[in-house]
Amino acid sequence: MTAKKIFLPENEMPSQWYNVGPDIPNGLQPPLDPATGQPMGPEKLSAIFPMAILEQEMTDQRWIDIPEEVRDIYKIWRPSPLIRADNLEKAIGTKARIYYKYEGVSPAGSHKPNSAVAQAYYNKEAGIKRLATETGAGQWGSALSFAAHKFGLECKVYMVRISYDQKPYRKSMMNTYGAEIVASPSEDTEFGRQMLKDNPNSNGSLGIAISEAVMDAASRDDTNYALGSVLNHVVLHQSIIGLEAKKQLAMIGAEPDVIIGCCGGGSNFGGIAAPFVADKLNGKNIRFVGVEPASCPTLTKGKLAYDFGDVAKVTPLLYMFTLGHDFMPPGIHAGGLRYHGMSPIVSALVRENIIEPISVHQLECFEAGRLFAQTEGIIPAPETCHAIRAAIIEATKDKNEPINILFNFSGHGMMDMVSYDKFYQGQLENYDYPAAEIAKSMANLPKVD
Amino acid sequence: MTAKKIFLPENEMPSQWYNVGPDIPNGLQPPLDPATGQPMGPEKLSAIFPMAILEQEMTDQRWIDIPEEVRDIYKIWRPSPLIRADNLEKAIGTKARIYYKYEGVSPAGSHKPNSAVAQAYYNKEAGIKRLATETGAGQWGSALSFAAHKFGLECKVYMVRISYDQKPYRKSMMNTYGAEIVASPSEDTEFGRQMLKDNPNSNGSLGIAISEAVMDAASRDDTNYALGSVLNHVVLHQSIIGLEAKKQLAMIGAEPDVIIGCCGGGSNFGGIAAPFVADKLNGKNIRFVGVEPASCPTLTKGKLAYDFGDVAKVTPLLYMFTLGHDFMPPGIHAGGLRYHGMSPIVSALVRENIIEPISVHQLECFEAGRLFAQTEGIIPAPETCHAIRAAIIEATKDKNEPINILFNFSGHGMMDMVSYDKFYQGQLENYDYPAAEIAKSMANLPKVD
Repeated sequence: MTAKKIFLPENEMPSQWYNVGPDIPNGLQPPLDPATGQPMGPEKLSAIFPMAILEQEMTDQRWIDIPEEVRDIYKIWRPSPLIRADNLEKAIGTKARIYYKYEGVSPAGSHKPNSAVAQAYYNKEAGIKRLATETGAGQWGSALSFAAHKFGLECKVYMVRISYDQKPYRKSMMNTYGAEIVASPSEDTEFGRQMLKDNPNSNGSLGIAISEAVMDAASRDDTNYALGSVLNHVVLHQSIIGLEAKKQLAMIGAEPDVIIGCCGGGSNFGGIAAPFVADKLNGKNIRFVGVEPASCPTLTKGKLAYDFGDVAKVTPLLYMFTLGHDFMPPGIHAGGLRYHGMSPIVSALVRENIIEPISVHQLECFEAGRLFAQTEGIIPAPETCHAIRAAIIEATKDKNEPINILFNFSGHGMMDMVSYDKFYQGQLENYDYPAAEIAKSMANLPKVD
Repeated sequence: MTAKKIFLPENEMPSQWYNVGPDIPNGLQPPLDPATGQPMGPEKLSAIFPMAILEQEMTDQRWIDIPEEVRDIYKIWRPSPLIRADNLEKAIGTKARIYYKYEGVSPAGSHKPNSAVAQAYYNKEAGIKRLATETGAGQWGSALSFAAHKFGLECKVYMVRISYDQKPYRKSMMNTYGAEIVASPSEDTEFGRQMLKDNPNSNGSLGIAISEAVMDAASRDDTNYALGSVLNHVVLHQSIIGLEAKKQLAMIGAEPDVIIGCCGGGSNFGGIAAPFVADKLNGKNIRFVGVEPASCPTLTKGKLAYDFGDVAKVTPLLYMFTLGHDFMPPGIHAGGLRYHGMSPIVSALVRENIIEPISVHQLECFEAGRLFAQTEGIIPAPETCHAIRAAIIEATKDKNEPINILFNFSGHGMMDMVSYDKFYQGQLENYDYPAAEIAKSMANLPKVD
């Protein structure tokens, strides 16, 4: 057997990101200004984003240079290893070869710093002093706290209440990197205060926390906003995952038959899929499987439509799969997958039947995560358990088929052990979000002519 | 600059461990049978250890083959990376080059699986069905739980009470690997019940937990005992750290001027130091610095003498630096450094003035750990913070001296964030263990003629 771990030499780390946008048949729909219903240019958004980021958001260039300063920080953990999960293969009795791209080696423990470092850099270059953001599971908040500190920026994190309570260690991690953290809904923004008044026991949601962070950024000249998923520039930055994986598979002469990632806002899956989409369009037989929780089934039960990215309706309208901007996901433990919307890039790839979306339940995911830990050692984050579950499903459809499965191991679960505890104690249940409830939030989609 | 991370190819992972014992001038003193005061042969110990381990404990061979089954599991994370801490160097303004061997990539997050996997393997080969052990910070317990599961063995972990309370995530991790965990002192052994009767609020200590695990193993035919540090065979298994580091430094044409590790029982420091000791004896100018907490100052305030390894006096007498077997260390947060004794190998190297022991206080260590996280990304375990603190001390003695410093990054701190929280909240204090108290426990050293 070849080596279990495939390391790409540091000097072969990609020097450019790859923008999958131009590859998408029938393209992307532009974001709309909710006030006018017209496509939104960069001017209005420049209040909360630096121009370099907005250019990346809207570019039709395929290759974008990674700044040297960003690459220097990437080198702390990148290139990340590609690892053959041969012990897992044996345990499930398959001839499929399962490879995972291990993003848990980053300082925050996930893929999130890939974009956080880039965003902090461009904001620093633009003279910004402070960043405001939201975080669900805590991964993005940790990543941006780290990145902001590296560039000498302050960082304020609105952390979804249920994660804030369930993941105290994530707060300590953000403290280590010098960030200020508050539970969302918070008393620190007008919208947060309104939400607390309506529902003092709110679990919060990414949609609410985004509203708070955007309002914070809009209210201060020295502050910009940073988003950890969904937007095109985030998927662009995450493409380094797929670019490295492609080189690593080439080092062992392998090509992927199935590429798998979990889908919350779409950044980790979009990132690993990006450089392979053109291969499929050029005739290669590659399947892309996007995995989401049945309790927040954006791609499998939602609708492709223009919708707000947040609850307070302060973002532009994005053309994406959505469950409705006021959809309130239940407090499942994969906090990073609790979002009503989906990256427009991933959404368009689903529309074009390039990505196959599936939904899975949380118990089978934790079961898969435990099996992975027992066989491969590493304890996965609950989000990553979804990708592992899908990899097992694909690897056992026909156990005699020696296909190559590549999945993105988006993050480790060292800070998610409370969720595992609940699983071991039988406190977790499966949950299918009721169709009638989804219909309700879908009824509130904005009208676009 | 050369690459930040130096990866040893998987097929160059050492195929033998290195036994530093034969290199030590004036050698090691044998363990004694406390009943007779005579050197203890393997017969008596075979009730709780497999013969293969006892042979390694007593061998004077320098090179010992690593079994293929052990190497296969090592490959999950080994060879571990050697990383240049250039961002830390810049932050402290030194021309010294600081390299760290990053053992946090293992499933348990530390160097501990290096020995756990080997011990589980030899016990499995000997027909043993179950292992009993103790754990301080939880690192060793996690490692043995993982290793036992890989070889289909049951595992019972006696976890020092203060860590059991402070580190709930460590318990969840051990649960993930299928182990049974109990706080020590426990109701599960006669000694534990006695200790609880005397002091129901006992913090516990490694010395007590060792007694409980040894008694558990001695009471059952299907069960053996496994120790995570101190003994010669553990240092032997950990030598893979130093062997890899030596190869990795050679890849960039560097040689170490100072080698640093934190010292609890001595395994991680003994492991990284082992293959370099002969170089020093052969005239190379290498310094070895062993770092311990001022609150548990075994090497700097203890005495080189025969003593028990545990509180209940069930172990053989070991010739080592000790604070006395009934020394009760305070509940500092570096749980892995709370041990009254020290590996006989490290002790003998201190006796021969090959290792320089120093002690540091916990506040400066957490400060060093935070600086490391902010510059190099990774949050270190409190134990590892001691090594980082010493590396900073060495690197700033003369900032213009471009020396090569190598330290062992024994583990990450993902499961130690509660300690960091207390540090940030100003709840931690420095503590020098009072000389009068040390004198008391030293007065109880066993008499050996």
